[in-house]
Amino acid sequence: MSNTANPYNLSVVEALNLIDKRALSSREWITSCLERISQREPKVHAFVNINTRVLEELDKLNDIGVGPSIPVGVKDIIDVRGLPTMMGTNFHDNRPVSRDAGSVAIMREAGCIVVGKTVTTELGHKHPGPTRNPHALNHTPGGSSSGSAAAVADSMIPVSLGTQTTGSIIRPAAYCGIIGYKPTYNDFDKSGILPNSPSIDTLGILTRTVKDTHYFRQILIEEPYYVLKPRTLNSLHFGFLKGPLWLEAETEVQNLIADHVDALARKGAKITELSLENEINKLLELHRLISGYEFRRSIADERVNHENKLSRVLREGRLADGHTTTNQEYQMAIKELTHVKLALGKIFLEIDILVMPSAKGAALPTLKETGDPIFNSVWSISGNPSITLPLFNAKESNLPIGCQFVSDFSNDNILLEAAETIMLEFVSPS
Amino acid sequence: MSNTANPYNLSVVEALNLIDKRALSSREWITSCLERISQREPKVHAFVNINTRVLEELDKLNDIGVGPSIPVGVKDIIDVRGLPTMMGTNFHDNRPVSRDAGSVAIMREAGCIVVGKTVTTELGHKHPGPTRNPHALNHTPGGSSSGSAAAVADSMIPVSLGTQTTGSIIRPAAYCGIIGYKPTYNDFDKSGILPNSPSIDTLGILTRTVKDTHYFRQILIEEPYYVLKPRTLNSLHFGFLKGPLWLEAETEVQNLIADHVDALARKGAKITELSLENEINKLLELHRLISGYEFRRSIADERVNHENKLSRVLREGRLADGHTTTNQEYQMAIKELTHVKLALGKIFLEIDILVMPSAKGAALPTLKETGDPIFNSVWSISGNPSITLPLFNAKESNLPIGCQFVSDFSNDNILLEAAETIMLEFVSPS
Repeated sequence: MSNTANPYNLSVVEALNLIDKRALSSREWITSCLERISQREPKVHAFVNINTRVLEELDKLNDIGVGPSIPVGVKDIIDVRGLPTMMGTNFHDNRPVSRDAGSVAIMREAGCIVVGKTVTTELGHKHPGPTRNPHALNHTPGGSSSGSAAAVADSMIPVSLGTQTTGSIIRPAAYCGIIGYKPTYNDFDKSGILPNSPSIDTLGILTRTVKDTHYFRQILIEEPYYVLKPRTLNSLHFGFLKGPLWLEAETEVQNLIADHVDALARKGAKITELSLENEINKLLELHRLISGYEFRRSIADERVNHENKLSRVLREGRLADGHTTTNQEYQMAIKELTHVKLALGKIFLEIDILVMPSAKGAALPTLKETGDPIFNSVWSISGNPSITLPLFNAKESNLPIGCQFVSDFSNDNILLEAAETIMLEFVSPS
Repeated sequence: MSNTANPYNLSVVEALNLIDKRALSSREWITSCLERISQREPKVHAFVNINTRVLEELDKLNDIGVGPSIPVGVKDIIDVRGLPTMMGTNFHDNRPVSRDAGSVAIMREAGCIVVGKTVTTELGHKHPGPTRNPHALNHTPGGSSSGSAAAVADSMIPVSLGTQTTGSIIRPAAYCGIIGYKPTYNDFDKSGILPNSPSIDTLGILTRTVKDTHYFRQILIEEPYYVLKPRTLNSLHFGFLKGPLWLEAETEVQNLIADHVDALARKGAKITELSLENEINKLLELHRLISGYEFRRSIADERVNHENKLSRVLREGRLADGHTTTNQEYQMAIKELTHVKLALGKIFLEIDILVMPSAKGAALPTLKETGDPIFNSVWSISGNPSITLPLFNAKESNLPIGCQFVSDFSNDNILLEAAETIMLEFVSPS
C-alpha cells in the first residue's frame, strides 16, 4: 500500500501509522519531502519560499518530546511566523512576519511544520504566478491556490492550506487531480489571512486522500481525530445538478458526470435531478456584487499605495466592478443572501449531497490564465461545504477531471463520509 | 462657535470650513493637535506611539497639491504603514508594519494623516492599558478602544477609529463623554485589523460631533459627502427599551433616560415601550458562545506561541469559555443568529430607533477594569448600527453619561439624522 522507500508519497494518515509502528520517523518523512521538492520544484514552481529551518524546528520539537511532526504547505496569503507573506506580489515587504495566522498556530500546536509558502495568484485574484500543472507543465494548475494544489499533486507535501472566494480551492485541486475541500463558511479561522471578500472567503484543505482531509479538518476545528466511517451509498440521496451551471460544462465532462451518477444509482444511491435555476442565478449575481464590493476595500492598501504595480486584470477587472456598487446595494445584497441561504437549506432537508462538475473541463493549455470558477463561486457565497474528488481523466490529454459534491451548511461530516465511500468504491481503497 | 486660537478644539467639519475660507491651514490645525497631545498625553496616556513623521507627511501631501489634511488616531489593533501594531501586548513585533489596513488606506486617500496609534486593552479584550479618563484621571476610560475615546474626548485629535466586538466603542465613548458610532455589521472594511470575533467585529468612529461621524462614515464607505439633514422628532417612532437590559442600569441612569424619553415625546416623537425579552436573552447567549469560540481561534498565535505572556483575565476568561464550545454548537449558534436577526428586522418595520442606556452608569473609579458592556454586546452581535450621544452628566461626580440609540440593519442614515436632531435639540447647535 505505502512505500517507505519514498515516504513523500505517503498520505498523512499512512505516515502517522508507520511512525507509530516505528517503521518511519518524522525526520525521514520530512527529509523525503524536501528531497522531492528539490527534484521537482525547478519544474513545477509551487513554492514562493522553502522554510530553511524545517529540520532545525523538527529537532527542537523532538527535544521537548512532542508527538510526530507533519510537513505542510501554506498558501502565501496566510501568515507563518518566520517567513514573509508576499501575497503574489513583488512589492510587499519581504521581511519574515512574526505572528502566525490562527490556522497556522493551531496546526503548529497539533505538530505540523510549515515546509514552505505556496504560490498564490496576485492577491488571490486572477493574475497567475509561476506555478505549472505537474501533470502537464504547459497547463495551468488553476488558481488562486495554485502552488498548494500543485505541491500536493506532485507529492512534494501531503497537505496544504488554500483559500477560496470564487473557485480557488476546488478548481486547482480538480485541475491537479487531488482532493480539495472547502468547509462550511467560517468553519476554520481566518485571522492572519489576506481577506479578499470576508463574507465569502473560506480557508480549506488540499490533500491526496479523504482521510487526510478529515484528519486536518479535526485539527483545524480543534476536536479529537476519529476514524471516518464511510456512508453506504444506499443511505444517501444525491441531487444531480442540471440547470444553468450544467450547460457551462464541456460535453466530455457532462458525460463523465452523468455516467458517474448512473453508477451511484446502480450501487443503490437515490438520485433526483435538480435545476435550482433561481437560486443559482441569484447566487451568481450576489457573488459578483458582494465579492467585487468587498475585494475593492480589502485591498485598499494596494489600490491606494501601490496602484501602478498591480496587474491590468486586477485593476480593470474586479476593482472596477467593485467601484460601481453602492453601500446600500451591497447591504441589500447581504440581506438577500440570507434569504437564498435559507431557501437552499430547505433543499437539503430532502437531498443529502449535490453532484456536479468541479470545473468546465480539464486544466487549460496555458499559463496565462487559471480557468473559469463558475462551478464553484455559487458554493463559495452560499457557504455550503464542497469537495472535489479526482474521479476522471480526459480521454485525449489524460489530464485529471474532478467531480464536485456539496452538502448542507454545517453538514461537513456527511460530505466527507460520502466522499470516502465514493473514493473507495470508484478509485481505490486508500 | 469655533476657536481658531486653539484649533485642536475644532471638529473636522468646522476645521475644513475654516481651511476652505483660508482662516486656517492643515498645518496649523495638526500642529495645534500635536501641541495639545504634548500637554495632555503625559496625564491621559491615550497613545501607544505618535507618528513622528506627521509634518513630513503633510509637507509631501502639500507638495503634490492634494486637498486639506485631517488628523486622525487609529486604535492599535489596526495596521498603519510606518508604525508598529502592538495590540495592547508587550511581546509583539515592534517593527513598523508596511501595509495599511483597508480602512486606513481609504482614509489616507481621503486626506487623513495618522497622528498616532491609540491604546487598546490587551488584544482588544478586558485587560486594561495605561489610558485614563480625561474627565477624572483615576477613572477608567472604558475599553477596548480606550485611547481612541480618551484622545478625542480630550481634544488631542478630532476623530479616531475604534472597533467593537462586545462594547468597545459605545462604552468608552459614553464614559469619555463623546460620540461613538458602530455602523451596520461589515459596513466598513476590516482587513488589516486584528480579528477578535469576525462574525461580530465592527469598525467604528469616535468623534465630538454627529456631523464628523457622518463625514467619516462617507469616507469609509467611499461615497461623496453631503450635508446631513436632521429628522424632525415628530417623524420618528422610538422604541423605549425596557426588559432584561433596563434592569441592569443604575437608578440614576434609568431616571435620566426615562426623562429623556419623556422630553422626546413632548417634542412630538412617537414612543412605544418594548421589552424584546426573548430576542435580548437569546442575543446575550449567542454573543457569549460565538465570541468565545471565535476569539479563542483568532488569537491562536498568542495562545500557542506566547501563552505565558497573556493576562490572567484573558487566559481564564474568554479563552476558557471558547474551549467549552464544539464546532457543531458554534455553527448551530450561527444559524440561530440568522433567525434572531430576521425577528429583529420585523420590529424595525414599526420602530425607527431604540433608546436605552449606553452603559450601567458613568465611568468606574478604577483603572483595573474597563466596565460592563452588557448594553452593547447584543447590538454588536445583531449587527444593528448603534450610536452613543453624550446627553447627561452624573449628579455627584459630573462624569458623562451616554444615551444609546439603535436602528435597523443597514439603516444607518436614519440613526445619524436622528442623532443630529437630538444633539441640536438637547445639547447645543454644533
